[in-house]
Amino acid sequence: MKIQLALDRLKIAEAIDLAKKVEDSVDWIEVGTSLIKEFGVTSIKELKNAFPTKTIVADVKTNDNARYEFEMCFEAGADVATVMGVSPLVTIDICMEVAAHYNKKVMIDLLNTSEQQKLELQKYKDAIFCLHVSKDQQEEAGMANRGTADNKFSVGLQIAAAGGITLESLEQLKATVNPEVVIVGGAITKAGNPSEAAFQFKQKIAEIEGK
Amino acid sequence: MKIQLALDRLKIAEAIDLAKKVEDSVDWIEVGTSLIKEFGVTSIKELKNAFPTKTIVADVKTNDNARYEFEMCFEAGADVATVMGVSPLVTIDICMEVAAHYNKKVMIDLLNTSEQQKLELQKYKDAIFCLHVSKDQQEEAGMANRGTADNKFSVGLQIAAAGGITLESLEQLKATVNPEVVIVGGAITKAGNPSEAAFQFKQKIAEIEGK
Repeated sequence: MKIQLALDRLKIAEAIDLAKKVEDSVDWIEVGTSLIKEFGVTSIKELKNAFPTKTIVADVKTNDNARYEFEMCFEAGADVATVMGVSPLVTIDICMEVAAHYNKKVMIDLLNTSEQQKLELQKYKDAIFCLHVSKDQQEEAGMANRGTADNKFSVGLQIAAAGGITLESLEQLKATVNPEVVIVGGAITKAGNPSEAAFQFKQKIAEIEGK
Repeated sequence: MKIQLALDRLKIAEAIDLAKKVEDSVDWIEVGTSLIKEFGVTSIKELKNAFPTKTIVADVKTNDNARYEFEMCFEAGADVATVMGVSPLVTIDICMEVAAHYNKKVMIDLLNTSEQQKLELQKYKDAIFCLHVSKDQQEEAGMANRGTADNKFSVGLQIAAAGGITLESLEQLKATVNPEVVIVGGAITKAGNPSEAAFQFKQKIAEIEGK
């Protein structure tokens, strides 16, 4: 399992400082939606400049205007950009097309998708599918269990998991969802010692995977 | 019917220049999603500064992290902010709560909502409901008909309509959906003479409404 560090609700300089502290322990760096909406595409450019060898995920959460938004992200240096799975399929088609053109990846955020939508989305074999318990669901509704039902989604597809992931939940996550990418935000960024927290995630994953 | 001018795929200075040309004919000014994602919250601030007496709509298309995004928009001067109707209801609850606190409005974008979601969303009596044919649906799928089925949605609720609206489609729109707000982008912003185009919209609406 790779670790995607989600950077949210921070200034760009704070995000870079934080990522510098943990870069040895994380694989991918996510420019969170809040950074993009607060500071614009410069947030993606600055993170890519600071970490040119890391995979940069632009969590742009596209709902429409996919060509414009995805070209903007990839031109700014993103390696992966996100689209909402609840969007019209024509929007996701365009994301896939633009990503193929740039030789980059699409992450489809499954937040609030219906069972029917999850089935339809599985045709995008080259995408990464993100099982997502949203911030609002965690914070306001106290919902942090992504369930095991989503497990059936993973046959042959690339899966990421996001939302309230902690060191303690990694083992169950591996056993149920078995994602290729675990997206970790607050458990690292809000830790007293982010560097130590990230290292523990890396170690725990190595232990779980028997490396 | 009010006219909401949608400003998209422009630099901030271009958006302001364009809005200056048409401000006498439009009621609300929308800072498009593309401006917010490309330039950040400064796009909202600059438009509000340029048009302090206009209603400014921040088309932030929130899917999650509603408190942070809505506070950001309202603090920047937005009078209305948008949330996706396909989001978890807890997210929309937060938008309504933050808007009430700031004495501002929520516009719920109905893009790709199911019939069931449309029914559930009608509990948000203070929101404006935006019937939305997306850019991607228009441009790639050639779909511009929002149908008359949505008409049943409008009983006692505030309705906006968006997506490919032209001078020619206004009369039918009035007869079927009867929105309080018509959201017009390209038909004004891409016109050879935007000022003249906006004036024609204003005149046509006055004619339809018998003023």
